[in-house]
Amino acid sequence: MSRRHRSTTPPAFGAYTPDAGGSVELTETARLETFSDGVFAIAITLLVLEIKVPPAHAAPGETLVPLARSLAALWPSYIGYALSFATIGIMWVNHHAMFRHIRRADRAFLLINVAFLMCISFVPFSTAVLAEHLPDAEGRRAATLFYGGTFTAMALLYNAVWRYGVSRGRLLGPGADRAAIDAITRRYSWGPASYLAATLVAVVSPIASIAVHMALAALYCLPERRSAR
Amino acid sequence: MSRRHRSTTPPAFGAYTPDAGGSVELTETARLETFSDGVFAIAITLLVLEIKVPPAHAAPGETLVPLARSLAALWPSYIGYALSFATIGIMWVNHHAMFRHIRRADRAFLLINVAFLMCISFVPFSTAVLAEHLPDAEGRRAATLFYGGTFTAMALLYNAVWRYGVSRGRLLGPGADRAAIDAITRRYSWGPASYLAATLVAVVSPIASIAVHMALAALYCLPERRSAR
Amino acid sequence: MSRRHRSTTPPAFGAYTPDAGGSVELTETARLETFSDGVFAIAITLLVLEIKVPPAHAAPGETLVPLARSLAALWPSYIGYALSFATIGIMWVNHHAMFRHIRRADRAFLLINVAFLMCISFVPFSTAVLAEHLPDAEGRRAATLFYGGTFTAMALLYNAVWRYGVSRGRLLGPGADRAAIDAITRRYSWGPASYLAATLVAVVSPIASIAVHMALAALYCLPERRSAR
Amino acid sequence: MSRRHRSTTPPAFGAYTPDAGGSVELTETARLETFSDGVFAIAITLLVLEIKVPPAHAAPGETLVPLARSLAALWPSYIGYALSFATIGIMWVNHHAMFRHIRRADRAFLLINVAFLMCISFVPFSTAVLAEHLPDAEGRRAATLFYGGTFTAMALLYNAVWRYGVSRGRLLGPGADRAAIDAITRRYSWGPASYLAATLVAVVSPIASIAVHMALAALYCLPERRSAR
Repeated sequence: MSRRHRSTTPPAFGAYTPDAGGSVELTETARLETFSDGVFAIAITLLVLEIKVPPAHAAPGETLVPLARSLAALWPSYIGYALSFATIGIMWVNHHAMFRHIRRADRAFLLINVAFLMCISFVPFSTAVLAEHLPDAEGRRAATLFYGGTFTAMALLYNAVWRYGVSRGRLLGPGADRAAIDAITRRYSWGPASYLAATLVAVVSPIASIAVHMALAALYCLPERRSAR
Repeated sequence: MSRRHRSTTPPAFGAYTPDAGGSVELTETARLETFSDGVFAIAITLLVLEIKVPPAHAAPGETLVPLARSLAALWPSYIGYALSFATIGIMWVNHHAMFRHIRRADRAFLLINVAFLMCISFVPFSTAVLAEHLPDAEGRRAATLFYGGTFTAMALLYNAVWRYGVSRGRLLGPGADRAAIDAITRRYSWGPASYLAATLVAVVSPIASIAVHMALAALYCLPERRSAR
Repeated sequence: MSRRHRSTTPPAFGAYTPDAGGSVELTETARLETFSDGVFAIAITLLVLEIKVPPAHAAPGETLVPLARSLAALWPSYIGYALSFATIGIMWVNHHAMFRHIRRADRAFLLINVAFLMCISFVPFSTAVLAEHLPDAEGRRAATLFYGGTFTAMALLYNAVWRYGVSRGRLLGPGADRAAIDAITRRYSWGPASYLAATLVAVVSPIASIAVHMALAALYCLPERRSAR
Repeated sequence: MSRRHRSTTPPAFGAYTPDAGGSVELTETARLETFSDGVFAIAITLLVLEIKVPPAHAAPGETLVPLARSLAALWPSYIGYALSFATIGIMWVNHHAMFRHIRRADRAFLLINVAFLMCISFVPFSTAVLAEHLPDAEGRRAATLFYGGTFTAMALLYNAVWRYGVSRGRLLGPGADRAAIDAITRRYSWGPASYLAATLVAVVSPIASIAVHMALAALYCLPERRSAR
């Protein structure tokens, strides 16, 4: 089958025509990274829209509290903002690092990445749910489970993106270091497990669950160990 | 007519002065792609703003339902979010692929592209209309027709962008494969037809129309057939 | 004065240290273009947030109109959306073209550009004001003047960006074509004048003013005349 | 220890595997700059969402004021919009300039940068608080302190980003000019001090504090002194 013949039989609507080599050039990941960075940057910045400005005038039947007190009462929003900002930021740093190994992209890879981004851009909603219901004894547990569930799904899809890219060396660059990649794969699989554990803590105590999520974010910020002795 | 003379007689306000060769360099599509990626990324991320957070306190005269139940009651929003996210994501993957063939840009091309993006960035609104009215027997049909109509217009303009770029080889790179391009053109023309069909199903059954849209999204995600035998 | 000495005496806080040559490299405009494209893309996409979704349930004391009728009643929002989208899109195409001539950036140029972007990103607000008050006999005139005023300010600042860049060849690339640039400068100066005229029509008739704005947008979309005979 | 061995012992989840040289290539800052530009561009553009459109119809029990008067009454929103836009714009120009010296990135640098961006994208909220409470004698002081506090935190983190990058020449390019860098470091340290001073003026007079913030923005816009004599 000639290369030309292949390219005259393109895939279904919305096709993505790879080079005859069966995968696209390095530059393909550039546009994927740009698009992903866009979604990361927007999702992270939209988080702030969920913090509601205390009104200057009391609604009928309510007493106006001083602004300093209303701003302090927004602590659940600040916690949600900071935790979600840190988590999306960490995911961005990771996603960033992923493309040091994955150097090509195919259609399925792009689509799994879109699914991953669907989770990332859902975070402002689950953060808003958390902030609204954290001070509310009734809804606190459901809100924390929902919030943690979003992170767990995000970590699962992050692993799916990575594993699709590296399994059978599918999208790796030439001279990829198999041992290093397997080590990363093992390490990444702790992600969904630890987010799920942090989430399930909410069954017992929603506040403890948020604390564990915070500890996880701090842990993932730790500097890498420089070498193994 | 000298090259210089041409460049001293520029077009109307807001002109776009091409090289004397009559078309701009390859790098022009780079900025178009970046801008388009921006609009795609923002439109896709704004979708989440249309999901309304269940309030922690009942409004006067209403009973507060438990949070888990209110979150579950948001299913029409989740469906709209996922379907629109997938559809915009697929359009992004396609738009991405288009520039493997189209290597230059002229003023008209940029403007048709802007019209296409006007549809893409309208999707969060039609998604919000769908999510608000899907559970509502009264407005369900109109909402689904409106939603599907947006997708149909989007597919029509996508075809306009592509056809303007490839007709008479206008913006193709050197050594473009005519047969491959004609095959893509034929395939793309199914897009508006299938979105229109999915939309018209809503006259009989709005729910079935949404199901057909979902099936279309799944279909467009299918891996490309690798070769023709 | 040695180069080194100059660089040890940097400007006030937030300084921008150019090369000893007194201006920064070509790559500087790349990041400016990217940032500007971001603001253009976001402002254009935020326009859709100003279209309010018709509610599924009537507020107390109101009758629920069928969805098709409420969607049709949103025509002022659609007009504002389309007109502002087209106008920002045209400004983007123009801004895009500007960097075919301007190849460098200095601190003042960046800051004038920021002021221009301040107008661009104000457009979603003036569009929302227009859409809210166009059907309202009381506020229609003020809304149209306000809307047109934003466009006029935008065109003025666009001219300021251009003129700062080209006056005395300040930021032009080597081999810039003075005659072509002067022609563009003359043509650009029609921009603020025509937006101002379109705006002032609102004193007599707000609807006519919107029509003139639409005609201007259509005019600026016209293909460039290819040559002068 | 061989290079290979090091890369087989990667850091914790979400690792960032540098080259064996212990730091990543120049291109790493490219993606950081793009992501940062995204957050800057979005935060700056979201500012407009905080300006509330005057309604076309009076709420029950209120008298409708003419639109021109309601638009004029929004002056605190315009002040907040312009001041925050200018401040974020200046921070963007500065951040832009920073990467003329800092040519590499490591994990800690990325994370400090994320913390800095957390402040930038918080600005739309503190701006909205300011605009809502500036006309309100009760909350004006708290709002201005909150607003200025955000700027002070932003300036502190900006200094942290810079100092981390340059201390012990950590992320500088080859041939970096130590004297120039130390001068910038000294100059930057005025940033937090002056923002803090402007903020504390609010204890005496909130309006004066806003005026000082405006003067600071104007000062930072001043053209750099070209040389030292």
